Amino acid sequence: MFSNIPKGTRDFSSIEMKKRNYLIQTIRRKFELFGFYPIETPSIENLSTLIGKYGEEGDSLMFKLLHSGNFLRKISNKALIYDLTVPFVRYVVMHQNEIVFPFKRYQIQPVWRADKPQKGRFREFYQCDADMISFSWSLWDEIELIQLCDEIFTELNFPIIIYINHRDVLEGLVKMAGIENHLCKDFTISLDKWNKIGRNLVKKEMLKKGISSFSFEKVAFFLDMEENFYNKEKHLTVALQSSEKGRKGIQDLSFIYKNIENISLKKAKLEWNLSLARGMNYYTGTILEIVPFNNSISIGGGGRYDQLANLFGMNNISGVGISLGLDRIYLAMEHENLFQSIPSKVLFINFGNEEVLHAYKIIKFLRKKGISTQLYPHADKIGKQFRYANDNNIPFAISIGKNEIDKNKIRMKNIQKRTEKEYDSINDVLNQLT
Amino acid sequence: MFSNIPKGTRDFSSIEMKKRNYLIQTIRRKFELFGFYPIETPSIENLSTLIGKYGEEGDSLMFKLLHSGNFLRKISNKALIYDLTVPFVRYVVMHQNEIVFPFKRYQIQPVWRADKPQKGRFREFYQCDADMISFSWSLWDEIELIQLCDEIFTELNFPIIIYINHRDVLEGLVKMAGIENHLCKDFTISLDKWNKIGRNLVKKEMLKKGISSFSFEKVAFFLDMEENFYNKEKHLTVALQSSEKGRKGIQDLSFIYKNIENISLKKAKLEWNLSLARGMNYYTGTILEIVPFNNSISIGGGGRYDQLANLFGMNNISGVGISLGLDRIYLAMEHENLFQSIPSKVLFINFGNEEVLHAYKIIKFLRKKGISTQLYPHADKIGKQFRYANDNNIPFAISIGKNEIDKNKIRMKNIQKRTEKEYDSINDVLNQLT
Repeated sequence: MFSNIPKGTRDFSSIEMKKRNYLIQTIRRKFELFGFYPIETPSIENLSTLIGKYGEEGDSLMFKLLHSGNFLRKISNKALIYDLTVPFVRYVVMHQNEIVFPFKRYQIQPVWRADKPQKGRFREFYQCDADMISFSWSLWDEIELIQLCDEIFTELNFPIIIYINHRDVLEGLVKMAGIENHLCKDFTISLDKWNKIGRNLVKKEMLKKGISSFSFEKVAFFLDMEENFYNKEKHLTVALQSSEKGRKGIQDLSFIYKNIENISLKKAKLEWNLSLARGMNYYTGTILEIVPFNNSISIGGGGRYDQLANLFGMNNISGVGISLGLDRIYLAMEHENLFQSIPSKVLFINFGNEEVLHAYKIIKFLRKKGISTQLYPHADKIGKQFRYANDNNIPFAISIGKNEIDKNKIRMKNIQKRTEKEYDSINDVLNQLT
Repeated sequence: MFSNIPKGTRDFSSIEMKKRNYLIQTIRRKFELFGFYPIETPSIENLSTLIGKYGEEGDSLMFKLLHSGNFLRKISNKALIYDLTVPFVRYVVMHQNEIVFPFKRYQIQPVWRADKPQKGRFREFYQCDADMISFSWSLWDEIELIQLCDEIFTELNFPIIIYINHRDVLEGLVKMAGIENHLCKDFTISLDKWNKIGRNLVKKEMLKKGISSFSFEKVAFFLDMEENFYNKEKHLTVALQSSEKGRKGIQDLSFIYKNIENISLKKAKLEWNLSLARGMNYYTGTILEIVPFNNSISIGGGGRYDQLANLFGMNNISGVGISLGLDRIYLAMEHENLFQSIPSKVLFINFGNEEVLHAYKIIKFLRKKGISTQLYPHADKIGKQFRYANDNNIPFAISIGKNEIDKNKIRMKNIQKRTEKEYDSINDVLNQLT
């Protein structure tokens, strides 16, 4: 019988899991360092919670569940979660009476999308989200999130650029360029591809959608501008002066940018990217996107969403957050060779039941000292046992055969160096291992 | 709009998550200490992988998925995983050429069952599994697993009993009692309830199923026996002498018991429980069950399964493993008040943008020192900010207002003690916090 797994899902080997756990633990530690608290929401939500929050595309990519049993007639009213933001907002609304606001939480969980599997795009993947929900509104949230990303990726030794933009600036651009309201969404969707497909293809797309060449060029003028933040700010403040929203957007970005510059980042770079729009329907203010320094594949994003909770009947709350794609980070770091190899422990050679029992106190002692020690389960040929250590990158193997028992010695082999030595005491062995 | 989550699923608050993470980290650390390596398999598997491995009940409790999109006609061929053992065996078969045998892995992941939700029984819950797959066969695996459980629950300060039994002993009992082969399954299912529903109800069930009163009493004689391991061993060796399997089962248990007694356990107790049968179809040898010392709710179990991989076309391999129920452990520890409260960090009071910017270096310094520090995002009333610290169990709040800036001081409040003090330097503050 042939065994396989569903398309777009993956098995992770031990070597991969060690690296993934290293990423998760680093991200978790930094989230907590910044005062975000862990919560967890179910993998399954009611369809009514999820549908209509991600736009049409999102709705069609939802993994729906059958009711239990074999009855296809039972129509599904549940689905696997599509991201962590909507479940989080649902959580806030449902638990609003127990929660202390402002509420800062993080979640590290898998999400599912019935998307076409591609390189680097999976149907099951992990997101790492940090969000904050408040009844009032502060741009210090954005500043904290940017500092947080800087901390995480500095720790990972992974150079990133944080792109920032603002939905209100995009609205200002639309107004300035004289683009009709009903084309606004098409405009931003195409604009967002600027870095991926380039100026010409974006223009082609926009023209096809009914945006005039004149409008396109008016906007493109600013996207072509290779200026620092302050010059962009100057030019755009003039250009968008007739749009109240546009001016407000620029002001927000300016506040964030100036404070970040004052506080200073460690390794990350903050850059105003006018083409950044992001797909998620729910963003209403700042938008963030994280890309590695030397390629343009997004490894995370976020922004401010002010109306999402309205959909659940809770008004006047503002949310802002960042979502990191664990799998994308993994692939990018693997590609750049940024993972350190993880060292390992001891294999206890099995010479038979009596010998093992006699020497088991050594296993217990090493484990007590926190040294990961495994007993080879069978009294297989010694060569096979050493090969097992070698194949699993276990650096040391301890042998206690009849000989060693008689002489009251401990024999330990360094697998890589192929050297072997006899020790008089457990403590000598321990010194060698730590 | 009313917000809710599907029946049998749960939200976990920060306080719950801190405890859950503590459990997971303890279990993970001990798994690795014993030389198990982490892997992860998808939440979704092909139906063909899962169906027929758990018995009829299992098949009917599978959560099946629809194909993507809205098309009910597309019949589901995928399902959410039901446990971690079957996906693990599928993993071994699929990756047999990359794996070094004996293969020791652990997994900590959610599984799903479309079961009737009850107190302590959920539709989505976490299992923590450690298993080993080999081409040869060693009872040291069982001994290592028992030591592992002892380590974990000693670390958690949670007294447990590890019940052990053997499928071959059960077969021996069936033979000795003259129970017909086709009633064997019914017999073990009823026997397994001995500790839950008691002798009388088990008898009633067995009679109803067609097992004679005579047969029942022949078996019950040994279950009533309140003897230590060695006396049980002595009596059963005589009683089951005509059953080769029965004798083999007793021998296995005896080997395990004697070695464990020699090596000695820290806090756990190992006990031979003749009624232990466990539901999972796939066990073929030893069976293990873990229960808290003072109640009989199972918090984990395991055993040896020798034919599971045959179903995937890979013969001659033996598996043995243990599965811990994170949610059951959580509930039991919560009930016994075994969780330590987890201490926390610093709230940085917000007096306005200028003050925050001026003092942000203190936030950066504290975070650099690993102290979780959060900035209150808005310049809300001070009372509200302190209340936030109190409600979130944040023990310290640092205030840097105009006053403190002028005097070059740092004001810190101990929230629980309601004391406040001015410090001259960041290092003095740090001393107070560490």
